[in-house]
Amino acid sequence: FNSQDGLHPSEKLLSIAKQLNKNVEDLDFALYMDEQDPLRHLRNDFFYPKMKDLVSTDVSILDAEEDCVYFCGNSLGLCPRNTKQHMDVELDKWAKLGVQGHLNGVLPWAHCDECVDMDMARLVGAKEGEIALMNGLTVNLHLTLISFYRPTPTRHKILCESKAFPSDHYAFESQIRLHGYDPATSLVCIEPRQGESTLRTEDILKKIEEEGDSIAAVCFSGVQYYTGQLYDIPTITAAGQKKGCYVGWDLAHAAGNVELYLHDWNVDFACWCTYKYMNSSAGSLGGFFLHERHRHNDFPKLLGWWGHAMDTRFKMDNKMDLSPGAYGYRISNPPGLLVVPTKASMEVFNKTSMKELVGKSRLLTGYLELLINRCYHKPAGAVDGDGDHVYVDIITPSDPKQRGAQLSLSFNINVHQVINELSRRGVVCDKRLPHVIRVSPAPLYCSFQDVHRFMRYLADSLEAAKNCTEPVDSSKHH
Amino acid sequence: FNSQDGLHPSEKLLSIAKQLNKNVEDLDFALYMDEQDPLRHLRNDFFYPKMKDLVSTDVSILDAEEDCVYFCGNSLGLCPRNTKQHMDVELDKWAKLGVQGHLNGVLPWAHCDECVDMDMARLVGAKEGEIALMNGLTVNLHLTLISFYRPTPTRHKILCESKAFPSDHYAFESQIRLHGYDPATSLVCIEPRQGESTLRTEDILKKIEEEGDSIAAVCFSGVQYYTGQLYDIPTITAAGQKKGCYVGWDLAHAAGNVELYLHDWNVDFACWCTYKYMNSSAGSLGGFFLHERHRHNDFPKLLGWWGHAMDTRFKMDNKMDLSPGAYGYRISNPPGLLVVPTKASMEVFNKTSMKELVGKSRLLTGYLELLINRCYHKPAGAVDGDGDHVYVDIITPSDPKQRGAQLSLSFNINVHQVINELSRRGVVCDKRLPHVIRVSPAPLYCSFQDVHRFMRYLADSLEAAKNCTEPVDSSKHH
Ligand SMILES: Cc1ncc(COP(=O)(O)O)c(C=O)c1O
Ligand SMILES: Cc1ncc(COP(=O)(O)O)c(C=O)c1O
Repeated sequence: FNSQDGLHPSEKLLSIAKQLNKNVEDLDFALYMDEQDPLRHLRNDFFYPKMKDLVSTDVSILDAEEDCVYFCGNSLGLCPRNTKQHMDVELDKWAKLGVQGHLNGVLPWAHCDECVDMDMARLVGAKEGEIALMNGLTVNLHLTLISFYRPTPTRHKILCESKAFPSDHYAFESQIRLHGYDPATSLVCIEPRQGESTLRTEDILKKIEEEGDSIAAVCFSGVQYYTGQLYDIPTITAAGQKKGCYVGWDLAHAAGNVELYLHDWNVDFACWCTYKYMNSSAGSLGGFFLHERHRHNDFPKLLGWWGHAMDTRFKMDNKMDLSPGAYGYRISNPPGLLVVPTKASMEVFNKTSMKELVGKSRLLTGYLELLINRCYHKPAGAVDGDGDHVYVDIITPSDPKQRGAQLSLSFNINVHQVINELSRRGVVCDKRLPHVIRVSPAPLYCSFQDVHRFMRYLADSLEAAKNCTEPVDSSKHH
Repeated sequence: FNSQDGLHPSEKLLSIAKQLNKNVEDLDFALYMDEQDPLRHLRNDFFYPKMKDLVSTDVSILDAEEDCVYFCGNSLGLCPRNTKQHMDVELDKWAKLGVQGHLNGVLPWAHCDECVDMDMARLVGAKEGEIALMNGLTVNLHLTLISFYRPTPTRHKILCESKAFPSDHYAFESQIRLHGYDPATSLVCIEPRQGESTLRTEDILKKIEEEGDSIAAVCFSGVQYYTGQLYDIPTITAAGQKKGCYVGWDLAHAAGNVELYLHDWNVDFACWCTYKYMNSSAGSLGGFFLHERHRHNDFPKLLGWWGHAMDTRFKMDNKMDLSPGAYGYRISNPPGLLVVPTKASMEVFNKTSMKELVGKSRLLTGYLELLINRCYHKPAGAVDGDGDHVYVDIITPSDPKQRGAQLSLSFNINVHQVINELSRRGVVCDKRLPHVIRVSPAPLYCSFQDVHRFMRYLADSLEAAKNCTEPVDSSKHH
């Protein structure tokens, strides 16, 4: 199960199939792969939704008792089974102890965030003092930009990817305006080359080289939400820093999904949410990283009492004694009930490592890629609009080092009706109309069999949607 | 139970006692008052901690099965009984539906905050569109200051109370620094007069009159955390605005405690937490108020996708279409699990009104004041250091219109040991060493009998602490 041996996952899968004398398209093969999966038991640590429970399924065409196909961990991770148990403990503590719960129990609320942040640090490659758990993702992005984006007339730009996640885009624009600059001239968004969907590292580096002297902060997402592309974080970070820029990352789709070494990569700052691959419930606490070398920075900050050193915090003498590092960026006291699912999730992650998880993930997503390409690859010479044929172009890079679990599938048809049919069959994934479906087999709880079932339901859905399919419109492809 | 008839609550209580031919100091009287209390049943809507469950109690000196005396609602409100039930529903939804929980169920997570914010609006006197529920209190304070504190060389000050809550103080300082000004010259903190503990409205108005032209924002707490003083919000607001200042309020200790009419009072902005009198769990979602007349303001803001109008938010075209009013200040998507206790708490508040609650509260706190004054008032001519006598000076104003549920009791002895003894007896309250104990009989779940029991345990504690009491030190009194 070690996929880090140079072979592309699909080659590896084909060679395993060959050794076994099996066809990768047979259920048999998927079942074999699940048997070999050293992490397959982790699925039992989650509540995996059943067909009968989803609001969208049509139980007349499927087995109601079966698990659904949950390929939406890039949007909202599943509920760790221990969550309810831990929640009951905290609610019971509140009921029985009231305010004494701040300093007692499993998660003393006054420092509940500190009970799990080192577990999280391990997942993103951070050291003690570099991590805080607080607020929401975009709020944290603002807090870092208040410190790291300090524009001057000669260095006032923020460099980001075109089609950055909307929230990040609005954060950049409003930060630029806050300082009296104009996003039209201060926000630089790199576009992919004509006819391409993803950014080339060389183009990013070129842009940094060209405009770096006027760029205050470089801020990309680690894994692009739409394309699923994983950027080369260490290379881009180093290039930006060489030009005197601060370099930060929105790791919403990267944390818990790909291997990260934020400290070693010398990343200046980073933020992420914990409700996607980190399975910590909708809108839960955000993650925040500040590199150790900024530990004692004197940058502007939005301060609050929770950034005050703990041992003197309750002197309440209004003399700020700032915690060094990430803790100094904490503002409000932490919400105990949100740390509960995070704790439950970290307990599952603690049974493995990002290395091991990525090993599985590459094979699992590679398997999905392999089957999609086998079934829906446009043969050379085929015309897009040729009658019944449905083709899929995988926008996400094929290079496993340039992606995580997600594949963004671009169809040569409008997928509106297909999505409906997939939903009726209990496939939970994410649409970006008109042409794109994003699917993410999260390795903590998805199986090779799930991938196989997805392929079957996709075929059924395409068939069922045929009559309703809107006219093929190749111009909108991508 | 209508205390708004001009009589001071203690006079009212004495007149009731006289009619009944009872002594206010007798348990009998407290029991009678509880019987007459139209809100007494609301206590059953909360888990009221038992003596045996607290970590501090000594069951050898009390009845383990008895309720404790919970006078700490000014710090952390008790757990509404429905919380667990609502939590189970949301956790079950997550388990069964995964991401489909965003748009389904009792609290669809994508707009769970909107399910309760009108209930909260009623409690603070706000209109639709003026309220948002998000982040923590100090974070929200920063978000409002980003909009409302825009210093210029001639108008760069923030006016606040001396001994503002530390978090607010740090927020003010850091906002001033963010704009390149110096707190030493831009942060104006009003002190009480020599020998007084609370601020006089006339002094605040005088300061505003004197310095108003250079003040950008006036920001006080509604109820002062240390003294329990309720400021005259409408008068101070109007005075500040008359001088061209924006006027905002930190309502941490006021929301759910006193009657508020934020809209009618023309308050510019306000923030509060929901974990004190609003019983919504430690560190839970903050409240945010923006007056309707700022609904379409073009002030600087820290923007995120959750401020984007809902109907176009998921077009994801990175063109900001800002929600008007308070919703435009939302940044990150809301945490579903934190709305759960808020919902449970609002359900209890929905059974009454702030008017009715304050009616009870004035009598309840008036009863506490009456008994404290009877037992511990320093007789004229008595010397502070005279041997065994313990005197209490109530810092909090006696005028019921100038306070909420809390009384801040300043002792002529160091209360360190007294607090320990109170804790052993199951009295949960808040100490500010060396001399002050803050006690808050929250009217939603505290009774007249609780006040009576508090008095008994206080007497016992003073007696028990006698041997350990540090020397009387009248200089630190206040
Ligand atoms: C008056 C006041 N302001 C601010 C705060 C800080 O609140 P938070 O930690 O929720 O930001 C508190 C907390 O008790 C408070 O009482
Ligand atoms: C890349 C990225 N950035 C920002 C956000 C917004 O997160 P939040 O609402 O937690 O601030 C998301 C949410 O999905 C995201 O995927």
